[in-house]
Amino acid sequence: MRVEFHFDFGSPNAYLSHAVIPRIEQRTGVKFAYVPILLGGVFKLTNNRSPVEAYAGVRNKLPYERLETERFIKQHRIDNYQFNPFFPVNTLALMRGAVAAQRLGVFDRYVDEVFRHMWVQPKDMDDPAVIGAALQESGFDAAKLLALAQDQSVKDELAANTSQSVERGTFGAPTFFVDDAIYFGKDRLRDVEEAIIAGRK
Amino acid sequence: MRVEFHFDFGSPNAYLSHAVIPRIEQRTGVKFAYVPILLGGVFKLTNNRSPVEAYAGVRNKLPYERLETERFIKQHRIDNYQFNPFFPVNTLALMRGAVAAQRLGVFDRYVDEVFRHMWVQPKDMDDPAVIGAALQESGFDAAKLLALAQDQSVKDELAANTSQSVERGTFGAPTFFVDDAIYFGKDRLRDVEEAIIAGRK
Repeated sequence: MRVEFHFDFGSPNAYLSHAVIPRIEQRTGVKFAYVPILLGGVFKLTNNRSPVEAYAGVRNKLPYERLETERFIKQHRIDNYQFNPFFPVNTLALMRGAVAAQRLGVFDRYVDEVFRHMWVQPKDMDDPAVIGAALQESGFDAAKLLALAQDQSVKDELAANTSQSVERGTFGAPTFFVDDAIYFGKDRLRDVEEAIIAGRK
Repeated sequence: MRVEFHFDFGSPNAYLSHAVIPRIEQRTGVKFAYVPILLGGVFKLTNNRSPVEAYAGVRNKLPYERLETERFIKQHRIDNYQFNPFFPVNTLALMRGAVAAQRLGVFDRYVDEVFRHMWVQPKDMDDPAVIGAALQESGFDAAKLLALAQDQSVKDELAANTSQSVERGTFGAPTFFVDDAIYFGKDRLRDVEEAIIAGRK
């Protein structure tokens, strides 16, 4: 069984999922494969928009979404989440950096640290100087990582991840796959866990 | 504790919720109060649209929604659901009829029967002749019920139900309230049940 988490650092719901995934991994014994995708690319390919944009003019909808986020945080006892005041953040450099981090063998720690810089101690993470300082603070060779992130093959790989994800049914983030079964949004994590457990029987 | 189900017969997700609610009532011992609202009125008051309309141009989104509906049906073993081929159905007469049925003391059976005529043996339920025949088949005095549905105070009550629901946070249907806590959509029924159980402790 292959369980995948298709994520973009720019999504608060991706961070909240990332905060819960280790517990599901522990309970089920199954590791999630993290797949970096570019949410902006998904939106372009599917003609979708962020909820904040799509529901800006709809009464009650965004307050309800915030309420559900608060419920999720409370239910899962996530005590370190802070909404990024620079939201929406252009994550192109960060997501290319994720592919570069895979090649440099520092992917897991990169994911943890960048999520922290986005949603725990939030910063303006589309500013190259801020990104560089944040990665340096996290103990990465920021110059090396960011140079590799500009490599054409890295750019192409992120674009391919994104388009392949859309081919499999993605229209937003976070998206999960349990083998070929797709689940959209942090609120499906319970179903994801049940599908993992059912699949292991 | 007061648990409310704000519904419109025109929503397939309202029917699917209606199919599951009796089991939650049985497990928790708490009865749901059914509140008829006009979904078209909610959309007007909130500037919202149906998912089918809002996501018509978004790749992958509606197929995913259909997949989640299939999962819900399978998970809850709902074996009698049939998508209404006349969807979307204008439900103004049916929803006014629901208020009339409350006054005539036949509300619970009216709700069961109209949901059946919409989503089990689906018919073109915005055609007055079809509505009349369906209600007659269900053993109601259709003429009396539909005449009362045209009463100004019935019309006003449905409009008041709808605007009061929006005042409390509604933007679509089905919507649930556990006291003042709002839950949107059939996929929140698990949370509704947990809230009921938590509230009874």
